[in-house]
Amino acid sequence: MNSLLLNCDIGESFGAWRMGLDAEVMPLIDCANIACGFHAGDPGTMRRTVALAVEHGVRIGAHPGYPDLVGFGRRSLACSAQEVEDLLLYQIGALDGLCRAQGAQVRYVKPHGALYQDMMRDPAILAAVLRALAAYDRSLPLMLMSTRDNAAARALGAAHGIDLWFEAFADRAYDGAGYLVARSQPGAVHHDAETVVAQALLLARGAPLRASDGSALALEARTLCVHGDNPASLAAVRRIREALEAA
Amino acid sequence: MNSLLLNCDIGESFGAWRMGLDAEVMPLIDCANIACGFHAGDPGTMRRTVALAVEHGVRIGAHPGYPDLVGFGRRSLACSAQEVEDLLLYQIGALDGLCRAQGAQVRYVKPHGALYQDMMRDPAILAAVLRALAAYDRSLPLMLMSTRDNAAARALGAAHGIDLWFEAFADRAYDGAGYLVARSQPGAVHHDAETVVAQALLLARGAPLRASDGSALALEARTLCVHGDNPASLAAVRRIREALEAA
Amino acid sequence: MNSLLLNCDIGESFGAWRMGLDAEVMPLIDCANIACGFHAGDPGTMRRTVALAVEHGVRIGAHPGYPDLVGFGRRSLACSAQEVEDLLLYQIGALDGLCRAQGAQVRYVKPHGALYQDMMRDPAILAAVLRALAAYDRSLPLMLMSTRDNAAARALGAAHGIDLWFEAFADRAYDGAGYLVARSQPGAVHHDAETVVAQALLLARGAPLRASDGSALALEARTLCVHGDNPASLAAVRRIREALEAA
Amino acid sequence: MNSLLLNCDIGESFGAWRMGLDAEVMPLIDCANIACGFHAGDPGTMRRTVALAVEHGVRIGAHPGYPDLVGFGRRSLACSAQEVEDLLLYQIGALDGLCRAQGAQVRYVKPHGALYQDMMRDPAILAAVLRALAAYDRSLPLMLMSTRDNAAARALGAAHGIDLWFEAFADRAYDGAGYLVARSQPGAVHHDAETVVAQALLLARGAPLRASDGSALALEARTLCVHGDNPASLAAVRRIREALEAA
Repeated sequence: MNSLLLNCDIGESFGAWRMGLDAEVMPLIDCANIACGFHAGDPGTMRRTVALAVEHGVRIGAHPGYPDLVGFGRRSLACSAQEVEDLLLYQIGALDGLCRAQGAQVRYVKPHGALYQDMMRDPAILAAVLRALAAYDRSLPLMLMSTRDNAAARALGAAHGIDLWFEAFADRAYDGAGYLVARSQPGAVHHDAETVVAQALLLARGAPLRASDGSALALEARTLCVHGDNPASLAAVRRIREALEAA
Repeated sequence: MNSLLLNCDIGESFGAWRMGLDAEVMPLIDCANIACGFHAGDPGTMRRTVALAVEHGVRIGAHPGYPDLVGFGRRSLACSAQEVEDLLLYQIGALDGLCRAQGAQVRYVKPHGALYQDMMRDPAILAAVLRALAAYDRSLPLMLMSTRDNAAARALGAAHGIDLWFEAFADRAYDGAGYLVARSQPGAVHHDAETVVAQALLLARGAPLRASDGSALALEARTLCVHGDNPASLAAVRRIREALEAA
Repeated sequence: MNSLLLNCDIGESFGAWRMGLDAEVMPLIDCANIACGFHAGDPGTMRRTVALAVEHGVRIGAHPGYPDLVGFGRRSLACSAQEVEDLLLYQIGALDGLCRAQGAQVRYVKPHGALYQDMMRDPAILAAVLRALAAYDRSLPLMLMSTRDNAAARALGAAHGIDLWFEAFADRAYDGAGYLVARSQPGAVHHDAETVVAQALLLARGAPLRASDGSALALEARTLCVHGDNPASLAAVRRIREALEAA
Repeated sequence: MNSLLLNCDIGESFGAWRMGLDAEVMPLIDCANIACGFHAGDPGTMRRTVALAVEHGVRIGAHPGYPDLVGFGRRSLACSAQEVEDLLLYQIGALDGLCRAQGAQVRYVKPHGALYQDMMRDPAILAAVLRALAAYDRSLPLMLMSTRDNAAARALGAAHGIDLWFEAFADRAYDGAGYLVARSQPGAVHHDAETVVAQALLLARGAPLRASDGSALALEARTLCVHGDNPASLAAVRRIREALEAA
């Protein structure tokens, strides 16, 4: 069985505004995707989040987004490839600055929200992301979404010399092409804990899921995306962690 | 004679807005104080400015400021010492990210505008700045203002293990305590090129200036602050550079 | 007995970040101080908050602050009087735009956080605020803090033709000059519901409070500042409202 | 002959950054499209621009954009229709606040940059813009681009009770559908003053232009978009103004 790393978006507070149960979820995860100030996170929040990750021995990842605080980085912004490359380097460097002051460092990168979606949709954006990583530190893996066919992404990663960590979701249904079923569709989100844990175990074993069109879907997964937004999602992380360790 | 380094604020454009004759002044200076996105500079501008500095072999300094684009970082913001430390690490790291992608690195730090003034006025802010540098990279010098008595700053720098590079001005009158005469006062700014060059040479020789109260003022100076805002300031930099090289 | 209006800061969410129990507190108050986008509030939040105020027949006030989202407008920013005047007009107008679209309008102004403190401390800032109101709409009252001696503020208000609504606090101790005892001091905040209600009733009757130096303190008060941050503050508002209505 | 109004984007400075020859172009135009702080313009710049418009008797229009200072509002941001409506009301109101303080008022609206393009491309965005105007003040016209077939826009304007002011360009080539030839294409921009003036006169007379595909193109035009960016564009405005007055 693969050892699936649990990754979670974290450090998404901003100034006086709190978001997420960071202190509760940090002990349960392996990889902390820390917001870098453009869609969430501010220097103080970033410092505290890095400290929490260091305390729990959690791997720190940069979680850069579009410069859109009001929209929480969830609205696509028509940036050029060069602009994407620049804003990634800025944000990765900023987080690394706060890490370095605590003896830590950024160890991988996972773009946030609309930037993540745009990267999955548009090879030119994915290439810009990869160029930024290659220029910054070729040893940093990129976390991105696993689909049925990861060949194109894999080729682009290889061309830039960047390791790809494919992520999967235990709490979401997949369509036949291996993309997430849109939240607006019925059955898109698994609310039942048994189903979530079962899907996590299938992913960990490399066994195929059942896609929404009924087909078998084998998803390569190095990491599983979990959430620390609320007590329910926290409970799900605990269940997943226990099941993976028991397996 | 000391070899005075010429330092200049640069990279102060923002998005579509241009400021400063960066391409013209870069070949004339030794140290480029590059804005880091909080008061000026954006990721693209920072990348281009770093490239220009690399091209001309100019030492790159981080020029962090308060988060105040509208006020260009010239308005004091009542930050806590912790907030100052955090925003410095964020901005230094961000610039270092764009440097690293070009094989360069941040080699010193000079706070901008109101943050610089607050640091000179308030030892708690100076200590916060020094803590940030010590945490980030103890080998980074801090550029700050030379006054008649630099003992307190020197002691604080030593306590944090940070090298201090004192800067002086060739185009400004000093008062008896070694502070700049306020711009609102007559004679505060030297507009005459001969006077500017003469003051630069005195500073380079370590010879005393004449303060506005008539006293002799010896100013320790490792570097001279010059400006690339407009053709007149550019001409002054050229005159100073020629005079220093001829001396 | 005077009829004390209850005013409350509200609409302090920002984008995806929630703050305050707006829906719960709105039915309990008379005056809603709505954040205008510079320290909190965004166009969507402002629209929803205006709608809530309209629904409950609550008077809408503009609650403008310094442009400092990270600091929630609680950090003083060294603005010129002209800058204060301009940023007030901008924010009042913006909120009025969202009001107008719902058939409502801004009916008073209460500056937020550090801007409020600076206005109380510096007559030049108070004058700038008054000039903004006079220019925008001379019928808009300014809400500000009542102290032992309101004569200077009253004179300035009269000079600008602006009505002043003095506010007092039921949950805070006052010093002998009629200023709030700093939160860092013991006894600064009344946590006991009986004490809070008793102070509200004294203020409503125009009866003197007991200041922290033991002196009797008569505070002119047109309005009482209450809070909807959490269930405890909400309970306090309910108690105050009931006591005032019963009295 | 129609009387073509000359409209110009103006007030596009931001803080310390200057853009455009506002003082020079203001006396030459009829309608000032004033930036409202989201993509350019800050409260002080807006106040000064309003004052300049008032001084020259120029009609003031709100020129709202996406919240994207770095991108100058030229990058499309995937806002919902509701978000577009809200950000329009916010910006129109903000500018109206600064107008009101000077005895002026917003008299029309012209979206900026990517928001303008999105409005022309997507009827849902155009409808959101129209709803904002209808809610704010049904007497405010919307300035938008004239194409060969304005029927759909006209129907939508009528449905919302909003007057449409179609604008045309004297310095740009049009394709057969009445859209601007992309700047990347040869011949997209008329650099020759004679050609520009001739096209302005054709538009003023209601006479057809020659589109890039050779077809005759009749464009309804209430106003002509001119530019005050630099001395060359300023000279073009003068030529157009003289030719229109002579005609």
